[in-house]
Amino acid sequence: MVRHLVTIDDLTEVEIQAIFRLADQFLTELAHPDRPHRIRGRKQLADQFILATLFYEASTRTRFSFESAMYRLGGQILSSADPKTTSAAKGETLADTVRVLQNYADVIVIRHPCEGAVRVAADFAEVPIINAGDGGHEHPTQTLCDLYTLQREKGTLRDLNVLLCGDLRYGRTVHSLVYGLARFGARIIPMPAEGFELPDHVTRRLLRDYDCRPLSNEEVQRVRHEKFPVDAVYVTPERPHQRSLFSDLPDDPAAPLKARLPPNALAKIDACYITRLQRERLGENAPASTYPVIDTAFLKDRRYKSSSVMHPLPRVEELGYDLDNDERAVYFKQAAYGVPVRMALIAALLEIRPEILGQPAPARRHHLYQQKTLVCDNPRCVTGLTSEQRYLTPQFLLIPEEHRVLARCVYCEHDLAPRFLARASDRIYSHNTGWRGPLPNDLLLFADLHSAEAHGCVPPTPVAAKTT
Amino acid sequence: MVRHLVTIDDLTEVEIQAIFRLADQFLTELAHPDRPHRIRGRKQLADQFILATLFYEASTRTRFSFESAMYRLGGQILSSADPKTTSAAKGETLADTVRVLQNYADVIVIRHPCEGAVRVAADFAEVPIINAGDGGHEHPTQTLCDLYTLQREKGTLRDLNVLLCGDLRYGRTVHSLVYGLARFGARIIPMPAEGFELPDHVTRRLLRDYDCRPLSNEEVQRVRHEKFPVDAVYVTPERPHQRSLFSDLPDDPAAPLKARLPPNALAKIDACYITRLQRERLGENAPASTYPVIDTAFLKDRRYKSSSVMHPLPRVEELGYDLDNDERAVYFKQAAYGVPVRMALIAALLEIRPEILGQPAPARRHHLYQQKTLVCDNPRCVTGLTSEQRYLTPQFLLIPEEHRVLARCVYCEHDLAPRFLARASDRIYSHNTGWRGPLPNDLLLFADLHSAEAHGCVPPTPVAAKTT
Amino acid sequence: MVRHLVTIDDLTEVEIQAIFRLADQFLTELAHPDRPHRIRGRKQLADQFILATLFYEASTRTRFSFESAMYRLGGQILSSADPKTTSAAKGETLADTVRVLQNYADVIVIRHPCEGAVRVAADFAEVPIINAGDGGHEHPTQTLCDLYTLQREKGTLRDLNVLLCGDLRYGRTVHSLVYGLARFGARIIPMPAEGFELPDHVTRRLLRDYDCRPLSNEEVQRVRHEKFPVDAVYVTPERPHQRSLFSDLPDDPAAPLKARLPPNALAKIDACYITRLQRERLGENAPASTYPVIDTAFLKDRRYKSSSVMHPLPRVEELGYDLDNDERAVYFKQAAYGVPVRMALIAALLEIRPEILGQPAPARRHHLYQQKTLVCDNPRCVTGLTSEQRYLTPQFLLIPEEHRVLARCVYCEHDLAPRFLARASDRIYSHNTGWRGPLPNDLLLFADLHSAEAHGCVPPTPVAAKTT
Repeated sequence: MVRHLVTIDDLTEVEIQAIFRLADQFLTELAHPDRPHRIRGRKQLADQFILATLFYEASTRTRFSFESAMYRLGGQILSSADPKTTSAAKGETLADTVRVLQNYADVIVIRHPCEGAVRVAADFAEVPIINAGDGGHEHPTQTLCDLYTLQREKGTLRDLNVLLCGDLRYGRTVHSLVYGLARFGARIIPMPAEGFELPDHVTRRLLRDYDCRPLSNEEVQRVRHEKFPVDAVYVTPERPHQRSLFSDLPDDPAAPLKARLPPNALAKIDACYITRLQRERLGENAPASTYPVIDTAFLKDRRYKSSSVMHPLPRVEELGYDLDNDERAVYFKQAAYGVPVRMALIAALLEIRPEILGQPAPARRHHLYQQKTLVCDNPRCVTGLTSEQRYLTPQFLLIPEEHRVLARCVYCEHDLAPRFLARASDRIYSHNTGWRGPLPNDLLLFADLHSAEAHGCVPPTPVAAKTT
Repeated sequence: MVRHLVTIDDLTEVEIQAIFRLADQFLTELAHPDRPHRIRGRKQLADQFILATLFYEASTRTRFSFESAMYRLGGQILSSADPKTTSAAKGETLADTVRVLQNYADVIVIRHPCEGAVRVAADFAEVPIINAGDGGHEHPTQTLCDLYTLQREKGTLRDLNVLLCGDLRYGRTVHSLVYGLARFGARIIPMPAEGFELPDHVTRRLLRDYDCRPLSNEEVQRVRHEKFPVDAVYVTPERPHQRSLFSDLPDDPAAPLKARLPPNALAKIDACYITRLQRERLGENAPASTYPVIDTAFLKDRRYKSSSVMHPLPRVEELGYDLDNDERAVYFKQAAYGVPVRMALIAALLEIRPEILGQPAPARRHHLYQQKTLVCDNPRCVTGLTSEQRYLTPQFLLIPEEHRVLARCVYCEHDLAPRFLARASDRIYSHNTGWRGPLPNDLLLFADLHSAEAHGCVPPTPVAAKTT
Repeated sequence: MVRHLVTIDDLTEVEIQAIFRLADQFLTELAHPDRPHRIRGRKQLADQFILATLFYEASTRTRFSFESAMYRLGGQILSSADPKTTSAAKGETLADTVRVLQNYADVIVIRHPCEGAVRVAADFAEVPIINAGDGGHEHPTQTLCDLYTLQREKGTLRDLNVLLCGDLRYGRTVHSLVYGLARFGARIIPMPAEGFELPDHVTRRLLRDYDCRPLSNEEVQRVRHEKFPVDAVYVTPERPHQRSLFSDLPDDPAAPLKARLPPNALAKIDACYITRLQRERLGENAPASTYPVIDTAFLKDRRYKSSSVMHPLPRVEELGYDLDNDERAVYFKQAAYGVPVRMALIAALLEIRPEILGQPAPARRHHLYQQKTLVCDNPRCVTGLTSEQRYLTPQFLLIPEEHRVLARCVYCEHDLAPRFLARASDRIYSHNTGWRGPLPNDLLLFADLHSAEAHGCVPPTPVAAKTT
C-alpha cells in the first residue's frame, strides 16, 4: 500500500514527529560548512530514484524546494514548470496523466488550480503523490515546514498561542496549518483582513474533527479585558482537556464546555503568522483596503516581545522589510527548513526510511457516501471539470451535526448541506434540518426537492409535500 | 559516422530487433521490486553523458519519457520545455541551434512543428539527433514503443492484423507506425474517421517502398463477406509473398497480384490502435462528427476477443474509460514501455552498447535530386521557413512510377508531382505524364511550364509548346 | 566572504587568467574522444553542489551552457527557464527571491531584463551569484568566453586589433567586452550600425576607468590614410604606455596624450566581432537599414586575411552562412568554449578550486555616495522597479571630471550628471559645472534646483539664486 500526502490529515501526529526527527538529522548535515565534501562519502539515500514535479500552476520557489530536497538525497528530478506544457492542454485527465507519469518517476509532486485535484491523482497512482498546493484547499508540505519551524523555535507545539494574520480565506497554507496546529494542541488566534475570514467549512471542521469549541462567556470577557484586537479566537488547550473555540458572538451559551484557559493564557503570543493577499484567486474583487501589516511598529506591544514572525513567502506589502534583521523574523529560516523537511518526507514516502510511516494511512473518521444523487457545489472543485467527469464519481463523507447531516466532498473537502434526505428502502424524503438519530446505511441525500423527486422519492404525506 | 533517428526507416529491421532485445533487459531490471537498490551496485551506463530535450512544441509526457530513460541509464538531462524560450524566438536557424547545443549535450531530442525540421538538425549535427515528432511527419520513437508493445503482447509482429482507428491523416504516430508494421509483415487495416484517411503520400509510399498492393476482387469479396466495417485494408502477408493492398474500389483489377490471403485471415484482430483527433493541427476545420470510439461495446464482436487495445495517449473521447480494467487494454503498458525502449535507443546511439547499430545507416532506395528547380509544396515543410531558407537547398528523392516521376522531399517526405521534365544536356522539356524508361543522370524537374522556361528549357517543337 | 560575478570588473586580470588556465584543462578533458569513460574514474569536482538558473528572460542557449558546465563538473541543476513561472509574478522582490533560493542551491545564475538587477541579488546573497545578462548592462560570462576565444586563437590579448561591429548600443555583450579588452590591452575599433554607437556612459568609462584616450591628429591622419571604414577607434596600446582613444572629430587637440601607435598598427585586424540587432530592446524603433554584414565578400580585404570572426550568437542576417566553412569563422568554437570557461568559473566561485580567486574582490575605484538626494534616471535601472523600491536605497559612485562630478549608479552603472551640489555642513548649493578641487566628505548632489531647495539648501547669495 503506497502512501500519499494530499492533506495534512494523511499523516498521524506520530508520523509527523518522526518526519521532524529525520529532518533534524538532515538539517544538521546541510548546515555543516563542509557539507558537499562530507556527503560525498556516504551512501546516497535516493540514488536511482526520480522525483517528478508536475505544476499546473507556476511556482519556482516550491518546485525548487522539492527538487533541491531530492538532489540533496541523491536522487534525480523531472521538472514540469509550466501549466501550458502539460498534456492537460490536449485534454488529458488527471487519472491518465498520473498513470503514465508513474512509469517515469518514483514520486510525483503536483500543484493544481482545482481543489481536490491531487486527491484524484493519488487515487489512481501506484507511486507516492505529494500535494504542493491544490487551489484554495491545502498545501500540506508548507504546513509541515511551518510546524517544524514553530517546534524548532519554541521547542514544542503544545499550548502555543499562534496569531494568524492576513488572508485566511484564500490562503491554502492557512487551512492546512490550522488543522495541524489544532491537532498538536496549539491555540489559534485569527486576525483576518476584513472579508478574508476563515471559510465556514474550515471553522466547522475545526469544531467537528478537532474539538475546537467556543469559550465560555467568562473566558470571552477575560480575553476582551486583555484588549486583544481580534474578533475570534480558536483555542486548543492541552489534552486531555477538550479543545475550545472562542467567538465574541455569545451564541449557544449553553453548549457543553470543559476547557478552561489558564489565567493570562493569551498574554504572550508565541508566533505571528502572516500571509499575503492571494490576489490571483480574487478575480475582479477589490482587495482589502485595510490589510494587516506586521512590522517593527506592530511588534512593539509587549505580548509580541518574543513572537516568532513567520510568513510562507512570497511577501508583498504585509510584512515590513524593517523586520529582516530583527531576531524575531524567522521567515527565511522557515524557507530554509523546506529542504530538510521535504527530504525527510520524500525519504519516508519512498520507504528509503521505512520506519517513519506506519501502515496503513490514518483511517477516515466519517462514513463514505457514493450514491450518484449529489454533486459538489464548490465551483473550484476538481469534480466540476468536464475532463474529469468522464470517469470521476462524486464521493462525500457524512458529517452528522445536531440537527442535520452535512456532506463533505472527499476531494475538495467543502461541506455541502443537502436540503432533503431519504432511506433507499422506503424512498420517503424529509427535510435535512429535521434529522435525528444515527445515520441509516441506505441513506440518500438530495440537494433539493427536484432532485429527490427525480430519484423517485415521495413526501411522507401528500399534504406535507404540497406545503414544502 | 554518427547515427540519428529521424524516421523509422533510419533503422534496419535487424537493428530494431536488437534494440528490442536490449529493451527486454532494461524492462526486467526496471520491473524488479528492488530496482533502485539493485541498480546502485552496477556501473552506470550513461554516466557522464548529457541528453538535451529541445521541444519547440510542448509535451510533458514525451519529454519526461526521454528524460526518465536517460536518468535510468545514469545520465543527465538538459531540458527545454517551452517553445517560447528557445532562441528560435530571436530568429536562430535550426542549423545554428544544433551546432551550438551539440557542445552542451551528447545526444539531442527534438520536437518541432515543421515537417522535416529534425532531418535538417541531423544534417548539421555531430551528435545523435532523435526525432520526438516533427509536425505531421513522423514520431519514430513512439513507433518503436508501439512495435515493441505489439511484439511483447503477441510474441511476433509477422502476420498480425492491426486495426488503425481515428485520425490517420494528421496523426504522425500513425505514419511512422504503418511503415514499421509493413516492414515487419503485419497486416494494416485502416478505420479512419471520415475525412481523416491516410494521406496519399503515405499510401503511395506503402505501395512503392514496402510493396503493399491491392487485393484481388475475390479477396475483397471475401473480406466484405466478413462484414468488416472498413473501407480500405492494407495487407502485408508473410514474405516471401508480396505484400498486398486492399481497397473496395476495384480500380486497376489487372494489376499484378501475387499475394493470397489465407482463409479467414481477417477473422481475428490482433490489435486495435486508436488515436485522438489532432485538434491542434486542424486550425478552424470542424472535427469529425462521427469519430470512432473504442470501448467495451465496440470490442464485443468475437473478432476482438483477444485484441490488444493500444493508444499513443493522451486520449480524449475516443477510448472508453470502461476499458481501463479490461485485460485487453495495454495502453498504459505501452506508455510504460517507453522508458526501456528509449533507454535501449539512447544506449545504441551513444554507442554505450556499440553492438546494437550496424555501420552505416540504411541506404536510400532512390536517386537524390539537388537541382534548384523545385521547391517543396507542403506548406508545413521546414524548407518553407524563411529562417531556414538562408542556408537550406531543397533536395528530393526521385520516385519512378509507371508513367511519371515523383519527387519526394528529403525533409518532410511529401511527394511532389512535377508537371514538366527535361535533360540538362538538351533542355527540351516534356510532360511528366509521358515519361518512359530509366531516369537520366542529368534530369531536371519543373513544377510548371513557367518554371521550365525560366530555366532555359524549350518545347520539343514550337507547335507543341504553343498548344500546352 | 563569498565572491560574485556581476560585471567583468568583479575579477582581476590575474583571476581571469587563472580561470582561463583552468578552462584549458577542462577543454582538454572535454575534447578527448573517450571523455565520458575517462571522467568516470576521477573524483567529481562539484558532486553534492547544486546550481540554480533563474532566468527572468528566456534563453535556452545560455541556460544550457551553464547547466552543461555544472553537469560536466559533476553537480546538479535547478532550472527556471520561463519568466512567467517565477515568483516575481506574485510581486516578490529580488532580495527575497535570492534569500530563499540560496537555501536550495549553492550558486545562482540570474538573467534579468532590468539593468543592475543582478547586483541587487548579489548584495543580498550568501551564495555566489553569476550575471547571465541584466538588460543592456553586462553579460560578463560571455565576455570571459570571448576573451578566452581570442586568447586561444591569437595566443595573447595584448596589442590585438579587434573590430566591433553591429549593435554596440543595446548589445550588453559588447559593453562587458570593451572593458575586458581595454583591461588586457587590446585595441578596440568600433564599427557600429548607424544609430547603434557605444553609449556615452560606456565611452566615458573607457576614458575614466581604463585610460582610453584620444589619438593625436597625426595618428588620426595615419589611420585615415589607411582608409579604415570606421568613424571612431578606441586604441589601447601596450602598457606602460597610456591607453588611447581615437575619434575623427578633432576636439580637444590640446589634451595630454602620451600614447603612440606603432606604424601600421591597424594594418591587420586580428578579430571581427559582430552582434545581431537586439530587436527585443528596440520597442517600436525602426531597425538600422544599413546594418553591417560580415561575410566572405567583406573579409576579402587583405587586413582581414587572418581575422578571427566572432559572434556571441544567435545570428540573424549580419553574419553570412557562406563563412561557416571558412577557417576564420570561430563562432561555433566560441560557443563550445562556453562550457570549459563556465566550468572554471563555477569551480572558482564554489571554491572547489580555492586557488583561483584572490581574497577579497577587486576594490572600487571611486567614492560611494549613499545620500537619498538622487535617483538613477536610467528607465531600465532596477532601482526604478516599484517592487525593489520597498527596500533599495539608491547608491552612486562619484566620478570626478575636469569641471564637474558625475554620479554612476552602483547597480546599472549609468552616469548621471547632477546639476547642483552642496556641502552638508553649510547647505549652500552651486552649479556642478563650476566644481573645482577634491570632493568633500559631506557632499550632497541634486538633480535640479527644486531638489536642492527641497533638501534645505540655499544659494550662495540671494542675487545669484534669483538669476539661476
